[in-house]
Amino acid sequence: MKIVIIGGKGTIGNKVTDHFSKNNEVLVAGRTSGEVTVDIADANSIKKMFDGIGMVDAIICIAGEAKWASFNDLTEDDYYIGIKSKLMGQVNLVRIGQKFLNPNGSITLSTGVLADDPVLKTASAAMVNGGIHSFAQAAALELEQGHKLNVVSLELVIDAYEKYKDYFLGHNPISMEKAVNAYVRSVMGQRNGEIIRVYQ
Amino acid sequence: MKIVIIGGKGTIGNKVTDHFSKNNEVLVAGRTSGEVTVDIADANSIKKMFDGIGMVDAIICIAGEAKWASFNDLTEDDYYIGIKSKLMGQVNLVRIGQKFLNPNGSITLSTGVLADDPVLKTASAAMVNGGIHSFAQAAALELEQGHKLNVVSLELVIDAYEKYKDYFLGHNPISMEKAVNAYVRSVMGQRNGEIIRVYQ
Repeated sequence: MKIVIIGGKGTIGNKVTDHFSKNNEVLVAGRTSGEVTVDIADANSIKKMFDGIGMVDAIICIAGEAKWASFNDLTEDDYYIGIKSKLMGQVNLVRIGQKFLNPNGSITLSTGVLADDPVLKTASAAMVNGGIHSFAQAAALELEQGHKLNVVSLELVIDAYEKYKDYFLGHNPISMEKAVNAYVRSVMGQRNGEIIRVYQ
Repeated sequence: MKIVIIGGKGTIGNKVTDHFSKNNEVLVAGRTSGEVTVDIADANSIKKMFDGIGMVDAIICIAGEAKWASFNDLTEDDYYIGIKSKLMGQVNLVRIGQKFLNPNGSITLSTGVLADDPVLKTASAAMVNGGIHSFAQAAALELEQGHKLNVVSLELVIDAYEKYKDYFLGHNPISMEKAVNAYVRSVMGQRNGEIIRVYQ
């Protein structure tokens, strides 16, 4: 399979890239690193990326940002950081990417446990994650050519535990193996419109 | 109690307004009708509304629009109709409205069954509903002065059944009494950060 992984150099992306690279042709795309440059917050950049790489069998997005701040500090503009990047960035990736997806190909988006179980300072971050969950379930109903669309929603992963543990008090981090397996399930499985939650 | 109901003249809003008007001072706000004029898609309009009506004990929003269209027809701009109105409109209502809410007051937002169980043509509409669910759970963690924030997510209501039944095939419409009770539960109950789902 030919797979493009947007955000394939990140904490989770690295492990996912390692896994799929064993038996597939993997292209890593990123805003500042990777073989291909893309900024998912810009629809034209997404279009340009696909024009460059052509048809693929799987699209995996492990990218997208949102502003973390106390609810009383978040301005309207702050919400639009996440809306343009993690929310509409991933929506546009599906809108545009499906045209470059071979029959029976898959698109996998990424959210996180905040969608279902938010913590302090995540009014914006949780919002964009929850929006993607409902979007994917709806859009999956209308995909063509056997295309699949799933979302991986992970608990805090062990490799990010030190950096984020003070935000996720009482959360149990998941192993990187479990994280990678969620992406494997989406790409290699038959489900469509599934939110693959890996919490514990 | 002094209650402002944004969208209090709509199909559901009418019934909610009737109920609360029996024992409370109710102000109905709307874009084109009601005692107060407000366009929730414009943060300045929300601010102006509250400057006019002053402190309240409860804010109920049964307003906000999103574009319905086939996934392949929805443009990026189409998504921003719902983002500006039903998503950020309701977020801004909480951001701004909390400053005009008496201690222990409540804010109730509205979404719908599409967040959890979308139908065709609702990639954008489902998205904004799901975003509000996660936003409210996150923002509720940080409210002050005993403020509460809940979301009412209704199945198709019987009074809208004829208009929408062809979209919601196999869905069982709920009674207007059940719809009203969801708002009563949010305003009069003690829960905070709850998604009050009334599906059947």
